[in-house]
Amino acid sequence: MSQVNRQVILQTRPAGLPRESDFAVVESALPEPGPGEVLLQTHFTSVDPYLRGIMREGPGYLGSVSPGEVVPAGSVGQILKSNNPAFQPGEFAAGMWGWQEFACAAPNQLTRVDPALAPISTALGVLGMPGMTAYFGLLDLGKPKPGETVFVSGAAGAVGSLVGQIAKIQGCRVAGSAGSDAKVQHLIEDLGFDAAFNYKTESDLGGRLRALCPDGVDVYFDNTGGAMTDAVLLQINNFARIVLCGQIAQYNETEIPQGPRLLFQLVVKQAQMHGFLVFRYLERYPEGVAQMAAWIREGRLKYREDIVQGIENTGKAFIGLFTGDNTGKRLVRYL
Amino acid sequence: MSQVNRQVILQTRPAGLPRESDFAVVESALPEPGPGEVLLQTHFTSVDPYLRGIMREGPGYLGSVSPGEVVPAGSVGQILKSNNPAFQPGEFAAGMWGWQEFACAAPNQLTRVDPALAPISTALGVLGMPGMTAYFGLLDLGKPKPGETVFVSGAAGAVGSLVGQIAKIQGCRVAGSAGSDAKVQHLIEDLGFDAAFNYKTESDLGGRLRALCPDGVDVYFDNTGGAMTDAVLLQINNFARIVLCGQIAQYNETEIPQGPRLLFQLVVKQAQMHGFLVFRYLERYPEGVAQMAAWIREGRLKYREDIVQGIENTGKAFIGLFTGDNTGKRLVRYL
Repeated sequence: MSQVNRQVILQTRPAGLPRESDFAVVESALPEPGPGEVLLQTHFTSVDPYLRGIMREGPGYLGSVSPGEVVPAGSVGQILKSNNPAFQPGEFAAGMWGWQEFACAAPNQLTRVDPALAPISTALGVLGMPGMTAYFGLLDLGKPKPGETVFVSGAAGAVGSLVGQIAKIQGCRVAGSAGSDAKVQHLIEDLGFDAAFNYKTESDLGGRLRALCPDGVDVYFDNTGGAMTDAVLLQINNFARIVLCGQIAQYNETEIPQGPRLLFQLVVKQAQMHGFLVFRYLERYPEGVAQMAAWIREGRLKYREDIVQGIENTGKAFIGLFTGDNTGKRLVRYL
Repeated sequence: MSQVNRQVILQTRPAGLPRESDFAVVESALPEPGPGEVLLQTHFTSVDPYLRGIMREGPGYLGSVSPGEVVPAGSVGQILKSNNPAFQPGEFAAGMWGWQEFACAAPNQLTRVDPALAPISTALGVLGMPGMTAYFGLLDLGKPKPGETVFVSGAAGAVGSLVGQIAKIQGCRVAGSAGSDAKVQHLIEDLGFDAAFNYKTESDLGGRLRALCPDGVDVYFDNTGGAMTDAVLLQINNFARIVLCGQIAQYNETEIPQGPRLLFQLVVKQAQMHGFLVFRYLERYPEGVAQMAAWIREGRLKYREDIVQGIENTGKAFIGLFTGDNTGKRLVRYL
């Protein structure tokens, strides 16, 4: 076992799109678990768009990280030592210990992960936070009904790719936007989307949307915001439900960007819009995990992991989320 | 009885803020009720911001009016002749026959109005469409809880002035914005608002809002949109409810105006936004009318009518809605 702990710290707060130099890999001594704690070795850590928000100055809505601190993120790993009967060495757990090779944690900060049930990496993806985001956001807030049209922005991402498939399982027509032709092909050929398009090469988002969703949009699951959302709002049907999951198009903006004022469209269409954070469903996660796992076993739900190797590539893997590098859930393998 | 029927027609579609010359008073023969119809004489007609929308080219979300046609609007009046046993001459009814002195209608287009219950003008205000908009929009969508802060834009208007009072009845702290010092005084002194301010003379909407709503905003009832709404969205609390009733700030725009992209704020605060048209509650109007009438009888709900005299002033009265002339429900008296 390595006797040092490599950690990825925030070196400087990003201005705009993060640069690799905003992060640094530092070494520290292997931590020793305190009373009641366990020592974990990280197998996978997660890079997620929301982490950009916690790197800003000031108290964040999901916590914050300051220069010099390890970036907190979901990680999954194995118990190496345990001072608590709740976990035995060799067992696996997920938690928010972040971008480091080793960490100590108390059992109440951890979720047990059963490697016999599914690959442990899924605890950070389809059976973890992105999966629960897709499941509860779409079903609880979007309330799709059979035959309705569901549109997903950022459809090839960790959340979007699951939202589209869950909507298909509900009997909906599903369309989505993504940032490359390869992603579009993946959505249609692998994930069963009825329609998809590359928003980066489309100059007429509204026209394309009308063509792909001739009956309008009943449920819009929004991961991106920006011009795509403007276009969708102009195509919603009466009583549409809009689920605001993320607005990645503007996470790296230094000023609030401007766009068309479209709230009247919500009045006219009697639409509802729900912003949400998945943590509100924490108590219902077991329900979501059980259902998602069942759909995977039945072959009705597919997930793709986009795995980057090596702690030294963590910052780069994170930055790539904003330039559209990933398809599906991006993870960094530390072991 | 006059032997001619004076009618206000749309003469030209307004471009931007309507001008008086966009409307014309014309004379026609007194209409004769057909089989099963009644002839009504208009006592009051209504001018409402939403009518601006139906004057635009193309199918409107609430109907449309073309040049040469009488502007349809809510009116209340007395039955002069009846070819239907459902109504006797001398009785009163409300309907959408619009800006004209006389009209024929079938009983299924009319709502009976009891002059013994309340002044007949209230059928166009507190016990009519604006009243039901305030009642159902606030209670059914805003779901205010005792102790919460409710903020109302356009608070001195037909709807806003009722929303604030209903919120007070629910035990909320209530603040609002209006467009003159006299209106602000009316809100606080007559209607019991806890706080109000004149947005037209306030250069720092956000700062003023923070001062008047130190605990943030739990329910935002939006009649105006625009910069006021931007400011409120930046002050909402977790799980805030935003009720989008109108966006009068932009009804006269010829292009969709630009503003800051604030949807991420809804994500962070897990807020929900509901656009609505009151007609969805048509079947529940009796409940709303009964409750509003009871509150009026108990002295807990006040309403102000802003009555303009004479059919020749209808267009001017309508235009004044957009320049902030009215306090409370504006009506035009035709008789």
